[in-house]
Amino acid sequence: MPTAPKAIDFYWDIGSTNTYFAWHLLKPILAKHQATLNLHPFNLGFVFREHNYTLMEEPKVKLINRKRDLQRWAERYNLPFRMPDRFPIKSSVALRASLVARELDVEHAFLDKIFARYWEQNDPTISGVNGLLEVAQELGLDTQHFEERMETKEIRDGLIRSTQTALQRGVFGAPSFFVGEELYWGKDRMEFIDDQLALA
Amino acid sequence: MPTAPKAIDFYWDIGSTNTYFAWHLLKPILAKHQATLNLHPFNLGFVFREHNYTLMEEPKVKLINRKRDLQRWAERYNLPFRMPDRFPIKSSVALRASLVARELDVEHAFLDKIFARYWEQNDPTISGVNGLLEVAQELGLDTQHFEERMETKEIRDGLIRSTQTALQRGVFGAPSFFVGEELYWGKDRMEFIDDQLALA
Repeated sequence: MPTAPKAIDFYWDIGSTNTYFAWHLLKPILAKHQATLNLHPFNLGFVFREHNYTLMEEPKVKLINRKRDLQRWAERYNLPFRMPDRFPIKSSVALRASLVARELDVEHAFLDKIFARYWEQNDPTISGVNGLLEVAQELGLDTQHFEERMETKEIRDGLIRSTQTALQRGVFGAPSFFVGEELYWGKDRMEFIDDQLALA
Repeated sequence: MPTAPKAIDFYWDIGSTNTYFAWHLLKPILAKHQATLNLHPFNLGFVFREHNYTLMEEPKVKLINRKRDLQRWAERYNLPFRMPDRFPIKSSVALRASLVARELDVEHAFLDKIFARYWEQNDPTISGVNGLLEVAQELGLDTQHFEERMETKEIRDGLIRSTQTALQRGVFGAPSFFVGEELYWGKDRMEFIDDQLALA
């Protein structure tokens, strides 16, 4: 029997800080295992609401440490991260746009660009149509077609389905990863994903 | 000028699951850098109360994942961890006992034993005097002296002071580590501590 190809299912939302880091930290692991990356955009806010999960107010010293911790990750992995001035943002339009980019075979390049714009270049316009069309244009796509597709029922349903599947599989936060049916949560579990792919 | 010795300040509470893991994960890093470990018992419950921090109810799928995640850490680092049946426990008596163990120059061995009893052997008696005296006896200590010292004002004040210092330094959870004045939180930040010691 042929070995099943190694794969990571990556549940992402552009609005999640830790997902930005995970998007980059995944790359060397994928290369090492020659693994496939299956991208699953999902609406994190919807998942929180379904779980009646609200982010609680945290001690000031904890927030200070969180900020410092993000800087450390950026330095350690040489990523030009900066916390956007406008945070949080609505992400559903960008998530839908990624499904259009998938149809047009530029899904990975599209994610690279929207993550860089928001999490490196302090550009919140990717939460709306205009910024997303700029990205589509940079990728040499037909922006009129791109804009039309984003608003279709098919694409809207695609995001709803992807979010429902996330919930059904037990996703409760972002970033989330599956190797087979093993669920990993957080940018700080990469070595466990690496281990699991070695076994897969 | 002589180089300042490399050191980690480790703020620990026996009642914290992640502190058990950190206690073991620290050891290879200390050996690698020939670093000193300064142990700081502190009352985590008191720190939470000071910060008005209550652990919120979490989605069931998140709790399931947390349990799975702890198993993964145990397997990856070959630790005979098991979640104690009695959890949480009161930890202040054990924290005070560790200060007596320090006076008697068996602080590290004492921590090894209480962490193993509670987090490996499912033994909650280390939350009270009797279990702690058993440990003292195993270490060849005078148990009568040990018990008397645990209840002295000096030892009680020692734990209060250690907890107050934790708060003053910005500790909000356990395990917490300082390398110099850099604060790290969590069992999953060991590579950052390793990096910082390499610079120290």
